[in-house]
Amino acid sequence: MVTHTRNWCSAFNPSKCTHTAVRTCNAAHKYAEFLLVSHESVLCFVPLGGCKADWRPSNSPKLIDLLDDTVPGIGTYEDFNTIDWVREKSKDRDRHREITNKSKHSTVALLFSISDAFSGWLLMLLIGLMSGALAGGIDIAAHWMTDLKEGVCLNGFWFNHEHCCWASNETTFQERDKCPQWKTWAELMVGVSEGSVNVLNHFMYVSWALLFAFLAVILVRAFAPYACGSGIPEIKTILSGFIIRGYLGKWTLIIKTITLVLAVSSGLSLGKEGPLVHVACCCANILCHFFTKYRRNEAKRREVLSAASAVGVSVAFGAPIGGVLFSLEEVSYYFPLKTLWRSFFAALVAAFTLRSINPFGNSRLVLFYVEFHTPWHLLELIPFVLLGIFGGLWGAFFIHANIAWCRLRKNTRLGHYPVIEVLVVTLLTALLAFPIEYTRMSSSELISELFNDCGLLDSSKLCGYTSNSGSTSGSVNATAANGLGARLAGPGLYTAMWQLALALVFKMLITVATFGIKVTDLDVFLKAKQNIRAQASKHFFFFLISTLGGVTRMTVSLVVIMFELTGGLEYIVPLMAATMTSKWVADALSRESIYEAHIRLNGYPFLEAKEEFRHKTLATDVMRPRQSDPPLSVLTQSGMSVEEVERLIADTTYSGFPVVISQQSQRLVGFVLRRDLVISLENARRHQEGVVSVSAVLFTECDPPASPSAPPAVKLHNILDLSPFTVTVHTPMEIVVDIFRKLGLRQCLVIQNGRLLGIITKKDILKHMAQMANRDPESILFN
Amino acid sequence: MVTHTRNWCSAFNPSKCTHTAVRTCNAAHKYAEFLLVSHESVLCFVPLGGCKADWRPSNSPKLIDLLDDTVPGIGTYEDFNTIDWVREKSKDRDRHREITNKSKHSTVALLFSISDAFSGWLLMLLIGLMSGALAGGIDIAAHWMTDLKEGVCLNGFWFNHEHCCWASNETTFQERDKCPQWKTWAELMVGVSEGSVNVLNHFMYVSWALLFAFLAVILVRAFAPYACGSGIPEIKTILSGFIIRGYLGKWTLIIKTITLVLAVSSGLSLGKEGPLVHVACCCANILCHFFTKYRRNEAKRREVLSAASAVGVSVAFGAPIGGVLFSLEEVSYYFPLKTLWRSFFAALVAAFTLRSINPFGNSRLVLFYVEFHTPWHLLELIPFVLLGIFGGLWGAFFIHANIAWCRLRKNTRLGHYPVIEVLVVTLLTALLAFPIEYTRMSSSELISELFNDCGLLDSSKLCGYTSNSGSTSGSVNATAANGLGARLAGPGLYTAMWQLALALVFKMLITVATFGIKVTDLDVFLKAKQNIRAQASKHFFFFLISTLGGVTRMTVSLVVIMFELTGGLEYIVPLMAATMTSKWVADALSRESIYEAHIRLNGYPFLEAKEEFRHKTLATDVMRPRQSDPPLSVLTQSGMSVEEVERLIADTTYSGFPVVISQQSQRLVGFVLRRDLVISLENARRHQEGVVSVSAVLFTECDPPASPSAPPAVKLHNILDLSPFTVTVHTPMEIVVDIFRKLGLRQCLVIQNGRLLGIITKKDILKHMAQMANRDPESILFN
Repeated sequence: MVTHTRNWCSAFNPSKCTHTAVRTCNAAHKYAEFLLVSHESVLCFVPLGGCKADWRPSNSPKLIDLLDDTVPGIGTYEDFNTIDWVREKSKDRDRHREITNKSKHSTVALLFSISDAFSGWLLMLLIGLMSGALAGGIDIAAHWMTDLKEGVCLNGFWFNHEHCCWASNETTFQERDKCPQWKTWAELMVGVSEGSVNVLNHFMYVSWALLFAFLAVILVRAFAPYACGSGIPEIKTILSGFIIRGYLGKWTLIIKTITLVLAVSSGLSLGKEGPLVHVACCCANILCHFFTKYRRNEAKRREVLSAASAVGVSVAFGAPIGGVLFSLEEVSYYFPLKTLWRSFFAALVAAFTLRSINPFGNSRLVLFYVEFHTPWHLLELIPFVLLGIFGGLWGAFFIHANIAWCRLRKNTRLGHYPVIEVLVVTLLTALLAFPIEYTRMSSSELISELFNDCGLLDSSKLCGYTSNSGSTSGSVNATAANGLGARLAGPGLYTAMWQLALALVFKMLITVATFGIKVTDLDVFLKAKQNIRAQASKHFFFFLISTLGGVTRMTVSLVVIMFELTGGLEYIVPLMAATMTSKWVADALSRESIYEAHIRLNGYPFLEAKEEFRHKTLATDVMRPRQSDPPLSVLTQSGMSVEEVERLIADTTYSGFPVVISQQSQRLVGFVLRRDLVISLENARRHQEGVVSVSAVLFTECDPPASPSAPPAVKLHNILDLSPFTVTVHTPMEIVVDIFRKLGLRQCLVIQNGRLLGIITKKDILKHMAQMANRDPESILFN
Repeated sequence: MVTHTRNWCSAFNPSKCTHTAVRTCNAAHKYAEFLLVSHESVLCFVPLGGCKADWRPSNSPKLIDLLDDTVPGIGTYEDFNTIDWVREKSKDRDRHREITNKSKHSTVALLFSISDAFSGWLLMLLIGLMSGALAGGIDIAAHWMTDLKEGVCLNGFWFNHEHCCWASNETTFQERDKCPQWKTWAELMVGVSEGSVNVLNHFMYVSWALLFAFLAVILVRAFAPYACGSGIPEIKTILSGFIIRGYLGKWTLIIKTITLVLAVSSGLSLGKEGPLVHVACCCANILCHFFTKYRRNEAKRREVLSAASAVGVSVAFGAPIGGVLFSLEEVSYYFPLKTLWRSFFAALVAAFTLRSINPFGNSRLVLFYVEFHTPWHLLELIPFVLLGIFGGLWGAFFIHANIAWCRLRKNTRLGHYPVIEVLVVTLLTALLAFPIEYTRMSSSELISELFNDCGLLDSSKLCGYTSNSGSTSGSVNATAANGLGARLAGPGLYTAMWQLALALVFKMLITVATFGIKVTDLDVFLKAKQNIRAQASKHFFFFLISTLGGVTRMTVSLVVIMFELTGGLEYIVPLMAATMTSKWVADALSRESIYEAHIRLNGYPFLEAKEEFRHKTLATDVMRPRQSDPPLSVLTQSGMSVEEVERLIADTTYSGFPVVISQQSQRLVGFVLRRDLVISLENARRHQEGVVSVSAVLFTECDPPASPSAPPAVKLHNILDLSPFTVTVHTPMEIVVDIFRKLGLRQCLVIQNGRLLGIITKKDILKHMAQMANRDPESILFN
């Protein structure tokens, strides 16, 4: 299924002649060469017959005539290829221009033009609605299935524990959770609710967990292998311009949605954030198919996907601004201001949709809401910064441990049994989780337990203050989150706290071991989320934020997300201090975030924008052909026959060929893509009359003088890119890397004094960078 | 004082020969030409004597040998020039590499390398501290001087009204503002405090205001003309790579700080935000002088300035995250993630410093704090969106009116009397403002009046609820901002509200008229700020946010600032809806924000990153020389004498020259800047022995064969940029514009099939864009 892109320039070999010519400069040789050049370069420009002498192709100059692509397939990409951002954007501008021009002539075209202009916003609206709805559905389903592990509602099996007891008449708060309608499995099967039946409950709990996990693994394996994993590393790679067909397809969407519910319900320690970003991107990709503007343009589609990742975070945390910043800081590659506004809009719609669905029943955008309104003291900055340091250390360790584990799984036989692995982990989690109340809870239950204010109706042990707790009755609502002061605690509180701490440590250990496992993967966000109010102490909260910062290396977006989650306006300064410290510490230990580490582990062709290229190499050190390689495979603008071109295509695997004036002069005319060339030649053979193997292939606008008996020539001027990017041999690689990053190039030609000497592709750069960092250059690309 | 940059390529004229050669292809001519080419291009590469045959300049390849600039001044820019981002960044990387290499050899160098790595953060720390301290000082001084207009404190003239009455024994709240230590001018001079003396107070009020305004204008005119205006349009231009010496200098800083206090105190309707951004940028620029890394690199300095503009907004609003986003969305041109993190840090430090100074005495980061915690209903979105529409309309109108007024002032005699203009406006403002309590207040007083919660000690009329106001006594603190419900209002409230509304309308009218006036300019932020709680209704708040959105076209940053200001977590969705609507509506009317409109009005060479270039022109349509112009002025890599080069420099005004192999072949070798060339030649004449007018000028690495009697050649290989950016004649302008924007180029050479045909500079592009938009291309550049 996987079509490998071969590194298409690996055999653009350095012609000895080229280098020799430059170096030893045999004058006689040069002389002869230039004679030929002068002869050949004249060919095109001699005004013959009706051919336009001006070098401008026609009255309507275009980069490539892609709009009137009579030949289908031209201008598209193969799987596992990198897109050319410049070409895609140029295509879009051509399209836009055509629509604008037409709109001046008729009302229908004007309406079409207006609808086209608004289609981007409409698409954002749809993505927001769809993702918000899916996220709401996932929340509700996961909540129900988590409860199903413990028991069932007699009023209807589709009620979860909370809804089941909603209408209960029990008024004692302790009894409220034990309403008669809700039966644990033991009660239902044995009929007794006390004592030794706990074993039966435990057994049922583990069985359900195993069933859910098994279903999830089987579904992923059978229907959508791409639905595995967190998804963020792959989405980052796709956004940088790589093509992975099916990764964001409808099957992935369906299976990911179902297995996300199953996996969360099975009690595995995983978060919904990475998968929700993946789900939102799938929605976006599918919805793009209804809009020509986005369906047919890879660059435009990536803008939409950038917005979709903001939507994913927005629905995961109820934090629309944080989502936009997450997309900007962490995921996106190309993020113009226009995309910023659209992401903003889509995130807004999604958050709003989620709020309307109201899966948590608190009519708030956020799942939990904690307020730190007590002022903090200057001295408190010291523990906050210390926590930042610990968080950074722990984050770096987490990444290291996780990558080591993944590598182990990848390189040994351990990775050959993903189903068994998942089942074992589920079994262990379920066995160990059941005895303690807090580990048994699903993430969302745990979070709402930890975060919701202790009201009078609350049965949580964490709220078990004795009622003679000093202050006025109105301020009981001042939450336990601020419980730093000396507040009288009920007898159950300390026990509950201990159990909670244990539960969290346990979940964290499981998390290290399972990140990257092959079912809808857990996400590091979870750790912060499930713990925010956890320790009834802001210090633990800060530690967790710092850890999250250390793992993902987010700063601004993390603070904003936390800000939106908690409303902790007062705590911006300490939060920023902690996240910055954490980032510094973690960066000092290793430069990569967890996502980048996974990208590198999997060898995705991703050109990191954050890290500067600091080596001293020049373009000439990286370009192909190398000195020992055969000469660069080029086409000449005229003088080649169909057969010769076809032979060149068959003999090589490069995905594009430079076109020069002549083999001798090597003066660059343009660049033609292999795919376009193959399609055009096939098309000419099939549809153009009289084309035979000896027909000439012309990349020029005008015909050279040819004998009347010669077969008609194949004109390929329209697939020729007349403005390929060029650098000189002296250009430092740091600048080349910069150009590739900023313009999103696929390849770049290397010129000296007007002569074509070689070519540099994105993969050459990635290999070179790996080499410079003392890594195996062959690890780039696929596993 | 103003050195004009002439459009340096206006006379790179199209050699008829070039075009003719291409077009008519006289074979004989070509033949002769190539003979010459072959002869000349060989010259360099023939291994002669000890010269290296390899085209690599040496073992340590560098773009330009800028690190060892023995000749001072090379690599610097003249005033009113555009910097070359690529070259600057390349210089910085060279510098970094050198330090890293040295650090391996000695401990001192290692320590230096570490200190160098941390100097960026240290600089950010200093900027944050300095800006925070200045902002605090400005707040305190302005507060005091505003009160000085009304009266003086007998305990010490340096106390403001509030501090003066701090220790007062008066316990009645109505009397608290009228403590005996505080005397109005009438009381002090006439001794009576009632009745007709109000006229005297009014007179003193107006006099003080006029005095302050006069001082401000005189100071600006005498010492720092650049201190005038809001500063944001100029800072935007500077950040995009333009050089305006002195705009961010120490005089500007001093005068701007003083006049900001004076102008705010004089009662003019101006905000501190734009000026604070300017002040923070001045601080940053001055502090950069203490760090070699930033002093000598224009690109690095601009990164620091981007962070400084975040600091400015951070201290103006107490909104560090909002500041960072403002810098990202509105001001910055080049904003890599590294700058994001540093801005974040600097904004944090500044906000923290301000908090420590505590100018508002509420130990909060923010001046005012409003909470909208009442949930909003879905239907409320309709009025919010409507308010967004009105806000957008009003914003677009504001820009239009303001620009029309500024243009009038610029083009008529009205603009010739700036001092009188300011005094007249001040007089009018002061005369009209005095009678109503709210217009008389300074912005900050007004804001704190509007925003601070109504406590029991509050004397404000807006807090005048009757004490039998229904709910429990504890909830009196539930602010008037939420006063949508039916709350019983005291008799004074409605009067106060009406006066307030009038005051605001009045201030807004003044604002329209004075934005852009030539004293530390008012800022549009003010309008939202001074009104947030204003109407005791969130609807007015939304209207003002929308207006601000319409005027500045900010979205995300605006919402975040409001979010940080108000803590209105619940209101993210409606806020986003209102700002997006406002932006759409305003964009539909005109594309430009107030800052961009002012940039265009002043003709700054700013290449807008937001708007896409959508025209169909090619590089050939924009490049110089045009068809009717004389040929392109080029240097040849060898064969020119010092005299010839000097004559070329004297005859032309271009700021750079392409270097070609020979005049006939026009094969590009590199690019050399005029300034570097002039300095190097002068230096050679002065310091190199035996250099006379007939000495050869060589841009090659190796010497051509020369007769032993010839004078020594001047070698200029080290100032030659061997990797100039090139595009082909066929490259669409949209791509060229994209390259210029993204890489920050200054100029780009135009090539066809290896022959140099022309050059495109940033100013050519700006002129072309102005032409395409049917504006006067000559309006670009200076007034």
